[in-house]
Amino acid sequence: MQEKGLLIVLSGPSGVGKGTVRKEVFSQPDTAFEYSISMTTRAPREGEVDGVDYFFKSREEFEQLIKEEKLLEYAEFVGNYYGTPVDYVRQTLDSGKDVFLEIEVQGARQVRKKFPDGLFIFLVPPSLSELKNRIVTRGTETEDVINNRMNAAREELEMMHLYDYVVENDQVDRAVERINAIVIAEHLRRERVEPRYKRILEVD
Amino acid sequence: MQEKGLLIVLSGPSGVGKGTVRKEVFSQPDTAFEYSISMTTRAPREGEVDGVDYFFKSREEFEQLIKEEKLLEYAEFVGNYYGTPVDYVRQTLDSGKDVFLEIEVQGARQVRKKFPDGLFIFLVPPSLSELKNRIVTRGTETEDVINNRMNAAREELEMMHLYDYVVENDQVDRAVERINAIVIAEHLRRERVEPRYKRILEVD
Repeated sequence: MQEKGLLIVLSGPSGVGKGTVRKEVFSQPDTAFEYSISMTTRAPREGEVDGVDYFFKSREEFEQLIKEEKLLEYAEFVGNYYGTPVDYVRQTLDSGKDVFLEIEVQGARQVRKKFPDGLFIFLVPPSLSELKNRIVTRGTETEDVINNRMNAAREELEMMHLYDYVVENDQVDRAVERINAIVIAEHLRRERVEPRYKRILEVD
Repeated sequence: MQEKGLLIVLSGPSGVGKGTVRKEVFSQPDTAFEYSISMTTRAPREGEVDGVDYFFKSREEFEQLIKEEKLLEYAEFVGNYYGTPVDYVRQTLDSGKDVFLEIEVQGARQVRKKFPDGLFIFLVPPSLSELKNRIVTRGTETEDVINNRMNAAREELEMMHLYDYVVENDQVDRAVERINAIVIAEHLRRERVEPRYKRILEVD
């Protein structure tokens, strides 16, 4: 019987660097995960590519997919939809491969309900002040947008209790090392491997 | 308030290579663990040093320590006592450092009762046949001793359900990498770090 893959969910406050960490995870030549590309209705940022960073969709297209229940999770965040196509996730897990999602905290909450055995990782900034710096330094936002984001971040930090692990994004490469360690460890959890090792008792 | 260290317990069937893996863990220059040296009444094997590999004690000395409740755990195994001095473990954990125990499965069971939050790692051979080869290859045992060890190993494998993680000792360096990943991950578990991160909400 094929052992199912692990659903790895990376989430955290807006501006914490989820996308950067996710890109670094997948830049490793030996990465063992399949990346589930999210859909969004927000405009692409400079350098973002449709079908690589996100599937960029119109509001109309997105709302049609919601109706058809083709999304594992979706959230509206700062006026835009973000979501995860469900078929790809289920098929990949069934084939025994680990799936890596990088999603907003509202979405992570929905995924937890559908995949309680998933591996939920909360990425946090070294401090909220640091988070604010990062948002401001991006330089493309008005003060109102920044304040909205900060309030959203405070609410999101309060959602930490829904996660299994907390990873500080002090340095991207260190955050990635921690995520890799978490996934290795999770694959070695006794509940997960016990059926396989029970066979050892039959051998001699 | 000083955060307590983590109690890491490495155990597994006799002959699986616990001692070799433990030595490799502590040969790393950046190891973050304090090693708790066990006591035993068995004779030193070639190359083993008193106070480094074990504290070697007579049966009389060992039984006196049992009476004085100076042992966190002890077990009689193939005619010899093995045990862990309790004071060193408690003091080191209280100082915030991780303590690493390498003990027999009977002992691990006792430690689990006293430290339910410990991190229990079960080291397994690639197969029981492989385990038998290793015991025979050691070349110092009679067939009766080997058969006793094999039966003990079968019983011990059935104790896997008492552990948090299962690590296969296919190669020593890979086993050590897995153990390191488990400890890194365990330090990032949300229940463990949440109090620290709650402070972030107070900032700004």
